[in-house]
Amino acid sequence: MSIGPANVSERAQQPPVLAISTVIFALRPDPGHGAPTLWLPLVRRTRQPFKDLWALPGGPLSAAESLQDAAARTLQETTGLQPSYHEQLYAFGGLDRSPAQRVVSIAYWALVRPDEAALARETENVGWFRADGLERLAFDHNQIVDYALWRLRNKVEYGSIAYDLLGPKFTLAQVREVYEAVLGRKLDPANFRRHLRATPDIEETDEYLQGGRHRPPRLYRYTGAAAQRNNGPLSQSG
Amino acid sequence: MSIGPANVSERAQQPPVLAISTVIFALRPDPGHGAPTLWLPLVRRTRQPFKDLWALPGGPLSAAESLQDAAARTLQETTGLQPSYHEQLYAFGGLDRSPAQRVVSIAYWALVRPDEAALARETENVGWFRADGLERLAFDHNQIVDYALWRLRNKVEYGSIAYDLLGPKFTLAQVREVYEAVLGRKLDPANFRRHLRATPDIEETDEYLQGGRHRPPRLYRYTGAAAQRNNGPLSQSG
Repeated sequence: MSIGPANVSERAQQPPVLAISTVIFALRPDPGHGAPTLWLPLVRRTRQPFKDLWALPGGPLSAAESLQDAAARTLQETTGLQPSYHEQLYAFGGLDRSPAQRVVSIAYWALVRPDEAALARETENVGWFRADGLERLAFDHNQIVDYALWRLRNKVEYGSIAYDLLGPKFTLAQVREVYEAVLGRKLDPANFRRHLRATPDIEETDEYLQGGRHRPPRLYRYTGAAAQRNNGPLSQSG
Repeated sequence: MSIGPANVSERAQQPPVLAISTVIFALRPDPGHGAPTLWLPLVRRTRQPFKDLWALPGGPLSAAESLQDAAARTLQETTGLQPSYHEQLYAFGGLDRSPAQRVVSIAYWALVRPDEAALARETENVGWFRADGLERLAFDHNQIVDYALWRLRNKVEYGSIAYDLLGPKFTLAQVREVYEAVLGRKLDPANFRRHLRATPDIEETDEYLQGGRHRPPRLYRYTGAAAQRNNGPLSQSG
């Protein structure tokens, strides 16, 4: 979209508008092979600009709401869900990201557990999509999703964020499936089990996965501190 | 500072204002023992709120300037310096961080090499301070500095950002001094040399540190990709 000179000078006189956008990831089974894959909810735009394109949940920041509260509200309104992990991602403030006015979007990202994600609302204007291979989204939302995926991959490789995509108890194979879904490649099961057993942050339970197998796999539990995964001195604040 | 009811309702009707703040770190010798320590430049407030307190360089975001450009401009105006590393830190948007109006500050942080930092302007209203043990700053700027320090410590421990605080050539002891200044503790020199020699990202030069010692130490050079240190898919954009 090109912007004429009149429009440019008009924009230059208006202060930038602040908005919140939220990238919400959850694991859902691939409809074909059934393995867990990364999905996210999107909202269909019902007006211009970008009418009928899908966009990240969000909206303008109101004067009386903290950034964190506004992000939590958009997540709740879109999906009805409480996230297991919720963190500020980045402020996107390019000059041309919105055609009519200058909008600076502070993006948040959230992880939702699969048992929660299964309960998520899906309506005519709210849909869940696979995170890889998205169509063209409104504004610069493809770039925001790409950046959130990059952060998620980093956090999974160097942190213990994988457990925020799982329920409270899980098998070692389920942890591997999270890594595979996030990193987009298969991992060697024996190596991965060995690596995982050596980490101090998970412990065996006395329970086994239900489901009538001959040798049901053991369930484990995450015991690491949630604070380690988060934003250091900002973990407790908005 | 307490805000009366009239003030609250007035604030609730005004959209939040956007500002940029920049935390700029450089190494400077400790005036006592001479070892490199972390310093940052601050600007004295010449009007209310927080008149006469020191604050981070920054100011309101103008409509025609990208976030990155606004951050680079405040850095240039305050110190006259070009940073070796410059990255978005976090958006601070608490409701009560500024008494008169709601201000959301997008904070950036930058690293400046010591040869550059030595050239930095110091005036009546711009001073350099040690990053540890700051007095009470304006707004929530102590919290912003604490968070930038936390990010810097993380990046030094898990990345190769230490080289952004050094000149193009350096001794292994100078790298250790960066780590010691950032982490705030002494490291074992022999272990550290061994660890550093094993990293693929630095290489020997044929030069030695000038200065008339009997056995002058060898100079090294950083050869890793700058992009690895940066913000992944956002390294090239604003």
